[in-house]
Parts: sequence; structure tokens; C-alpha cells
Amino acid sequence: MRQTLNELIARMPFNRLLGLRVARTHRDGITIECTLREELHNMAGVLHGGVTATLADAAVGMAIHHHFKGVRRATTVEMKINYFLPIDHGKVRARAHLIRTGSTLCVGRVDIFDARKRLAGAALVTYMLLPNA
Amino acid sequence: MRQTLNELIARMPFNRLLGLRVARTHRDGITIECTLREELHNMAGVLHGGVTATLADAAVGMAIHHHFKGVRRATTVEMKINYFLPIDHGKVRARAHLIRTGSTLCVGRVDIFDARKRLAGAALVTYMLLPNA
Amino acid sequence: MRQTLNELIARMPFNRLLGLRVARTHRDGITIECTLREELHNMAGVLHGGVTATLADAAVGMAIHHHFKGVRRATTVEMKINYFLPIDHGKVRARAHLIRTGSTLCVGRVDIFDARKRLAGAALVTYMLLPNA
Amino acid sequence: MRQTLNELIARMPFNRLLGLRVARTHRDGITIECTLREELHNMAGVLHGGVTATLADAAVGMAIHHHFKGVRRATTVEMKINYFLPIDHGKVRARAHLIRTGSTLCVGRVDIFDARKRLAGAALVTYMLLPNA
Repeated sequence: MRQTLNELIARMPFNRLLGLRVARTHRDGITIECTLREELHNMAGVLHGGVTATLADAAVGMAIHHHFKGVRRATTVEMKINYFLPIDHGKVRARAHLIRTGSTLCVGRVDIFDARKRLAGAALVTYMLLPNA
Repeated sequence: MRQTLNELIARMPFNRLLGLRVARTHRDGITIECTLREELHNMAGVLHGGVTATLADAAVGMAIHHHFKGVRRATTVEMKINYFLPIDHGKVRARAHLIRTGSTLCVGRVDIFDARKRLAGAALVTYMLLPNA
Repeated sequence: MRQTLNELIARMPFNRLLGLRVARTHRDGITIECTLREELHNMAGVLHGGVTATLADAAVGMAIHHHFKGVRRATTVEMKINYFLPIDHGKVRARAHLIRTGSTLCVGRVDIFDARKRLAGAALVTYMLLPNA
Repeated sequence: MRQTLNELIARMPFNRLLGLRVARTHRDGITIECTLREELHNMAGVLHGGVTATLADAAVGMAIHHHFKGVRRATTVEMKINYFLPIDHGKVRARAHLIRTGSTLCVGRVDIFDARKRLAGAALVTYMLLPNA
């Protein structure tokens, strides 16, 4: 399962550019991760908030894919993210919990953890399910 | 001014990876832009929402830098973004309006435009000013 | 038009409890207002943030009603609001701009003004259109 | 403890107008509740989203009060709330988890439950701690 999802994530050019990987699947979601490198930094030498936002967005997208076993397509409607701590080394992980799967909208809650497993951010992400082609 | 800001933006590795540039400065903010290329796509072949979120974050950060003439450092506290249209070619632009500059927090409103100048998204981004070193 | 909208707003018990009124209609939205009174205060003796959130929610709801000339029903999907200034007397106004009217989702941007016409807050509110009965 | 907090909540006029009560305290937060009545409805005859937003805001405020044992004052900086289900009868509960207590900002995550204990909404609320007088 994780391998299939990792093949999927690697088919998305921007996720591949960032080096996102599926770390684990859960009953109610998924954990994805990314290893810090200099290219992902902001000027302060820590992880750029845009990378963290991308992780949150992708984690919920993958969780929806996982939940619907890949048969439903979905697109991000909106996202909200709070940043608590600068992330300066190692792996950052985004744990998505799918908290609402409606007929039109799905919502995921995401916890962002730094390499020391401290809560470094939190997000709420809404996707809209698209009609099947 | 725009040249100085572009040198600044190029000092941030992740903004450079994405190819962000300052397009214009305004009395109340700044416009930054990014040209679409395949690396910035999601699986549907359109701009990844994480890139748009990065643009919104960076636009407000640059607007704050511009407002304080570079003498104050600031860090992103939280961001909220709504996506209206898929963006599939050309330049995407983020126009940040600084709507609140407090003694601790600054808030920017961002309009995201696609290559046809249609409103493709909207964001609210909060930064916290850091004590000067 | 404003009178019809005010009859509508008065049919919503919670808006009536708060004393919301339509102040103006605009080409792209609506302005609603509310006069401060002691019942709407928080412990600090200023307007409770929940009232401001209600104003933002109601302003976009009324703007959607106005845009669709009352023929479409809609329900709030999510809201995000930033608070800039405490509001301690007089009228508070919420000016909603409808910035996206899709086939499923509508999004409004709201500026909140205090009695001195200072920007006291800003919000983004998403509604979902419901199928007609 | 719960009684002291309920005396506090009753000192806030708008919370009293809505009938908010502290239902439980937790190690990491607090649960507040409100019983539906006709005055809190929107036009569709269900709980107005503004009441739910007020619950979320108040729950995090009370959680911060509880955490700091009442010695720190704080004010709402911003809030984001997603609505999943209409709430049409009985008690609505807001369970706040304090997920970040910084030196300047505190963030709470809130789960909203309807009378049947279904997750009816979710929120993220940021408060700023004020300097002590």
C-alpha cells in the first residue's frame, strides 16, 4: 500500500521536487515526510513555510486517495495552517487525520512534527470531490 | 527598489527554487510572480496548491520587508488560502496588501491572479515581528 | 431592496437577537451593521469576537442571497477571521465582497470597520450552494 | 474549578446571552457547552454558525485562562472554523485542546460535537497573551 502511494506521490512533479514520501498509512489517514535540505530553506536558514503548507495539502490529498482507494479525484478548496516552531534539520512529518468525508467536501486535520517529534504546526485542509469522468 | 527586493528574494533558497520574482511595489504592498513550469505541477497537470501558498506567504513577507525598509525581521505565524481556479500556464501573480501593521503582528491580504488576470485565489497571512538583534 | 433584505435578516432569530441590519447593497456585495450594547461584550468590555464572526458570516450569506436574487439556498462551509482592533462603542460594519461564485462554492471577503471607520478585522467565508428543492 | 470557571464565563455578557457553560476541564483544555433554543437559530432552523464560532473562541479563551490559572489576560487574534453538519437540537459541545502555549501566542484546536456526539465542526483559534497590568 505504502509503495503504491509512493509511486503516486512521485507522479506529482512538485511533490517530487520537494522529495515528499509516504511514511505510514493509518486507519483514519496518512503520514508523509520530507527531509530538510538547503533548497527548502527560507532566508533565516529554516524550513520555508511554503514547504510545510505543501506537506499539509499533500497529506490530506493522499489521505483522501487512500480512503477512496483511488477511485475519486479531488481538488484543494482551501487550507489554513498555523506555524509554532522553526524547523531546522532532519525529517519533517505531516500526519493527516480525515475528519470529514462528505458527498462533496472532505476535510483533513494535519499535525506537523519536527525531527524531535515536537508539534511544529497544525492545519485544516478542505478538498472537493470531483465528479468521476 | 524592485532590484534590491529581487536580490533579497533570491537569497531565500526555496523562493529561488520556485523562481519567485518581485513584479511591482505598491504603496500598500507588493506583487510577486512565478512562471509555471512542469516541476511546479500537481498530478492534474496544473499548479500545485503548495506553490500558490508559498507565493502568498512570500508576498506578505516581502511586503513587510518593504514597509519596514528592511530593518525588522518577521516570521509567518499562520496563513489561510482559498483556491478558486486551476492555473495551467503562464505567469501567476500574488498581489499582497498590508492591511494591519501592529507592534507585534502584521497581516496581509493576498489576491492571486492567473495569466489571464482572473482571480484564482485569495489569502490572509499573519506575520509576527521579531525583536531586533 | 434594502428593506426586503432587512425583512429577511429579521427572519433569522440569531441575527435578530444581535440586532443585525443591512446598511447598504453594493454591486459586488453588501454591508451589514450592528450597534454595540452591553450584552454583546466580552469580559474586557469590548465587542465579543463571536459577534464579529457572526457579522462576517451573515454579511456573506446576505451577499449571496442578493447576488442570486433569493433563488439559491446556501450554507456556511468554513470561515476565517482576523481581529485587529478592539471595538468598544457605536456601530460595527461588515462589508462583504463576493469574490467567487462557482457552481458549488461561493467565497466572500469581508472587511470589518469600527465606528471610526478603522479596519478592525478581515475575514474569508465560504458557502456551499444547496440543490434547489 | 468548574464552578469558578462558570462564574467567570457568566461575567462575559455575550457568553451569558448565549448560555455558555463549562462542562468539563481536561489536562490539555476544556469543554464548554450550550443548549440550543430558537433564539440561536439561523433561517434554516438550525444553529447559527456564529454561535458555533463563539463557542470555539470562548472554549480556547477559557482553556488559556485555565492553563495560566487566571493570571494572564489574552485576546483573540484569529480563528478558523469548518462546519460539517447542521446542529438542530440538544446540547452542542466545544472541546478545546491547547496545542501551543508560546510566550506571545497560544493556539487551541477545537472539536465541535452535536447532541449525538458526532463531529459537527472543527476550529483553530489563536490568542495573544497581553502584558500584565
